[in-house]
Amino acid sequence: MAERDSRPHVVILGGGFGGLAAARALRRSPVRVTLVDRSNHHLFQPLLYQVATSALSAPDIAAPLRKLLRKQANARVLMADALDLDPTTRTVTLDSGELHYDFLILATGMKNNYFGHDQWEEHAPGLKTLGEALDIRSRVLRAYEAAERETDRSRQKELLTFVVIGAGPTGVEMAGALAEIAHRTLARDFDHFDPDKDARVVLIEGGPRVLAAFSEASSRSAREELEGLGVEVRTNTFVKDVDAHGVTVGEDLERIEAGTVVWAAGLKASSLTGKLGCELDRAGRVIVEPDLSVPGHPEVFVLGDLIHLEQDGALLPGVAQTALQSGKFAADQITNELLGYGRKDRFVYWDKGSMATIGRAKAVAEVGSASLSGFIAWLMWVFIHLVFLVDFRNRVAVMFEWAYAYVTWQRSARVIVDAPRRHRPRRERSRILKSALEPLEEPEASPQQPG
Amino acid sequence: MAERDSRPHVVILGGGFGGLAAARALRRSPVRVTLVDRSNHHLFQPLLYQVATSALSAPDIAAPLRKLLRKQANARVLMADALDLDPTTRTVTLDSGELHYDFLILATGMKNNYFGHDQWEEHAPGLKTLGEALDIRSRVLRAYEAAERETDRSRQKELLTFVVIGAGPTGVEMAGALAEIAHRTLARDFDHFDPDKDARVVLIEGGPRVLAAFSEASSRSAREELEGLGVEVRTNTFVKDVDAHGVTVGEDLERIEAGTVVWAAGLKASSLTGKLGCELDRAGRVIVEPDLSVPGHPEVFVLGDLIHLEQDGALLPGVAQTALQSGKFAADQITNELLGYGRKDRFVYWDKGSMATIGRAKAVAEVGSASLSGFIAWLMWVFIHLVFLVDFRNRVAVMFEWAYAYVTWQRSARVIVDAPRRHRPRRERSRILKSALEPLEEPEASPQQPG
Repeated sequence: MAERDSRPHVVILGGGFGGLAAARALRRSPVRVTLVDRSNHHLFQPLLYQVATSALSAPDIAAPLRKLLRKQANARVLMADALDLDPTTRTVTLDSGELHYDFLILATGMKNNYFGHDQWEEHAPGLKTLGEALDIRSRVLRAYEAAERETDRSRQKELLTFVVIGAGPTGVEMAGALAEIAHRTLARDFDHFDPDKDARVVLIEGGPRVLAAFSEASSRSAREELEGLGVEVRTNTFVKDVDAHGVTVGEDLERIEAGTVVWAAGLKASSLTGKLGCELDRAGRVIVEPDLSVPGHPEVFVLGDLIHLEQDGALLPGVAQTALQSGKFAADQITNELLGYGRKDRFVYWDKGSMATIGRAKAVAEVGSASLSGFIAWLMWVFIHLVFLVDFRNRVAVMFEWAYAYVTWQRSARVIVDAPRRHRPRRERSRILKSALEPLEEPEASPQQPG
Repeated sequence: MAERDSRPHVVILGGGFGGLAAARALRRSPVRVTLVDRSNHHLFQPLLYQVATSALSAPDIAAPLRKLLRKQANARVLMADALDLDPTTRTVTLDSGELHYDFLILATGMKNNYFGHDQWEEHAPGLKTLGEALDIRSRVLRAYEAAERETDRSRQKELLTFVVIGAGPTGVEMAGALAEIAHRTLARDFDHFDPDKDARVVLIEGGPRVLAAFSEASSRSAREELEGLGVEVRTNTFVKDVDAHGVTVGEDLERIEAGTVVWAAGLKASSLTGKLGCELDRAGRVIVEPDLSVPGHPEVFVLGDLIHLEQDGALLPGVAQTALQSGKFAADQITNELLGYGRKDRFVYWDKGSMATIGRAKAVAEVGSASLSGFIAWLMWVFIHLVFLVDFRNRVAVMFEWAYAYVTWQRSARVIVDAPRRHRPRRERSRILKSALEPLEEPEASPQQPG
C-alpha cells in the first residue's frame, strides 16, 4: 500500500468502543490513522443480547466504520484480519499485507473463554459477534418450533429448557429476555404446549451471587426480578460438562436436559496480546504501565478490556466506559507527545456507574454509592443506551423498536434466517470470503465482563 | 400428531402470499387449517432486493407466521420441510411426520433455475430467501472492502464490477440499487479508488428489452432511467458461462471480469409438483384445471406462480397478485363446497397492474392501458408496497428506513454479518438444525418473474 505521507502513522487494531474513540480523538492530531477491523462495522455490544433474543435487528446495533469515519480526513478504514505483530520492527501483518506504524493502539478486545473445554462451544455458543447473536436467535426460535412438532414429552421438555451459563450482565440480560419470550411473547403461539407453563429458563452461576461486580443489594434486587420473571437462578453451581442434550452441574453431577445453552461465563484476550513480548495475566490481558503503554514500548497502547491495571485496589473493569476513556487517553498521549506538551504519567479511570437490565421495565443501576432498581433504573438504562448508540439512525430505529415492544410485548426480529444453500466458495475466491467462513476472535472491545 | 378434530383438514404447503391468503380466507370456514412452511416467517419478497442491497434489515420484510395467524382459532402453523406428497392416500410427508388432508393447497412457489448449469449457483446466487439476500449483501460489501485492500489495478477493477443476469423486475431493481450504492452511498468512503468512477454495474438480458412483461414504452423508460444511474444495459445477450472471476457472454464469448454476479434470470417450480402425477410445463408448473385444481384431484389446489393457466391468451403472471387472488379463490372453493353452495367453474385473474422501481424516486408502473414513469410512479410504488406489507410494525419500520434513505442517500443495513465460527452440529441435533444447514427450495410464492 502506498504510504508517502510523512505524518506519523497510528495503527489502531479493533473498531470497538476503544478503537473508535481513539480514532476520533486523533482527528485534529498531526498524524494519519489507519483503523483495522475484521468486520465492516462498529458493534454496540451492550445490546447484542437483544439481537440474540429477537428484540432488535442486526443493523440496529451496528454502524459501518467507513460511514462513522468518513468525514475524518486523516483516518482510513481497512477491513482486514490482523494475523501478527512485531513490536521491534513496528509491523502489523494483515491477511492482505503489512502495515508499519509509529504508534500502535491495540483494541482487539476479548473472545469467549471455555477454560480448556473448547468442545463445549458447539453446544453453548457465546455472545460476542453479530453472527453469534443470530446463531443464538435461530437456536432459540428453532427449539420452540421443534417442540411444537415433538410428540415425545420428555424430548419436548428438553427442547423447552434454556440454560444460560454465567450471571454477569450478559447472562442476566439473556436469562431475563429468554423468560420474557416464554411467558409473554410466545405465550399464545403454540398448539401442542404452553410456553408460559412448559418453558424453563435456568441461569447457572459458579459464584455466590448474580452480577458479582455490583453491590450485594443490587445482586439481590436482580435475583428477585429474575425470579419474578420465572428464571430459575442457581448460584454456587459449577458446570462440569456441556453436550448436545444439556449440561451437567455441581459435585453430584446433576443433569439438566436442555435444547439451548448459552455461554456467558468467561472471556479471554484476543491472541495478539501474546505477540507483544510482555507479561500477560491468566486471561491474556496485558499488564500495562500506568499510562496504558506496553512495558518497554511507549509507542504501543492497550485499550479497554485488554488492560490489566489495578486502580484503587481493583482491576479496571472490562466495560464500555473503560474502553472509551482509555481510547481517548491513548489518543491524547500521542497528540501531546507530537505537539511537544509531554505525556501524562498515568491513566485515571472515572467510574460513571454500571447497570444491567433484566426485562421490560426492570433493571439495576449503580452510580457512586447510590443503587437503584426497578422502573427508574430501567428508564436510566434506556436513556443511556440510546444516547450512547453511535449513529443517529440506529438511535431512532432502536427507540421505535423498544416503544413497539413495550406496548405490545412483541419482539420484532423473530425471524430465522436460513444460511444460503451452498456457500462453498472456490479457492480463488477464498481471499474475499475468508472472514465470512472462518471468523476467528472478535476485534471489538467488550463492554461487559460476564460472571 | 394428535388429530381428533372431526372438521375437514386443509393442509397448506407454503406461507408466502398465496398460502397466507388462503389460510386467512379460511378463518370462518368449518375446517381446521395446518399451514406448513420451511421457515418461521412470511417473507415480503418484492422487497427482498432491498435487503440484498443494504436498504432494509431482514426482519423489516419478514413477519413470524405464528404471529400472523395467532388469532385465527382454526389454524395452526408447523415449521417443517415437506418431503413428499401422495394424492391417492392424501398424505404429506414432512421431515417430522405425516399429515393427512382432506384438501391440499400447494403454494410452495419457485426456486432459482440455472437451466442445467447448477455449478453457476456458487458464483451467481439468486434472490429467493432471506439467507440468499444476506449472502448477496455480504458479497457486495466485501467486494468493496477487498478493492480497498487490492494493489493490483486489474484485480481491483474486477472486484468493482457487478453483473446482474436477467432484466425482469428483480434484475432491474437490483441493478438500479447497485448503481446507487456505487454512485451515491459509498461515493466518498474509500481511499484507494472512487466508487463513483471505478465501479461498474452491468445488467445482462437475453431478450431484446428490459422488463419484457411491461409495455415497450415502460421498457424504454426503465432502460433510460437505468442508464441515467450509470448501469450498462446489455440486451440480446446470452450468458455462456459463469465462474469465480466473472461471466462469458454472447456468441463471440466476450469476457466480463466481475467480483459479484447476481442471478435473476429464471425460476422453476419447487419439486413437490412432480409428486402430483399430473402434467407439468417445462418449468415444473402444474397445468391446472380452470378452477386451479389438479386434474383428477378436485381436493388439491395449486396457487401463485406454480399455476400454469392461460387466460385471455396469456399465461397467468408469477406475481404477488396472482398468489393473493388464487389463495383467496381456493379457500372460497373449499368453503363453498363444504357449506353446500357448490364450486365456481373457473378462476378469473384481475390484473391490477404492475410496477418496478429503478432507484430513488424512479419507477415504472402500468395500470390497465396507462403507463407511468419517474417520480409519480415511484410514489405509487412506495405507497402500494407499504400498504401491502403484512405487519404494522414492518410498515412503520420500513417507512422510517425509506424516509431516512431518501434524505441522506445512506443505506442503513450496510452490515456484513459473519457466520459464527463453528456450527458443525452433531448428528443428534441435526433434526432441529437441519433446515439451517441445508435449506432446499424456498416455499414462498414468488411475486415476480424475472427475465
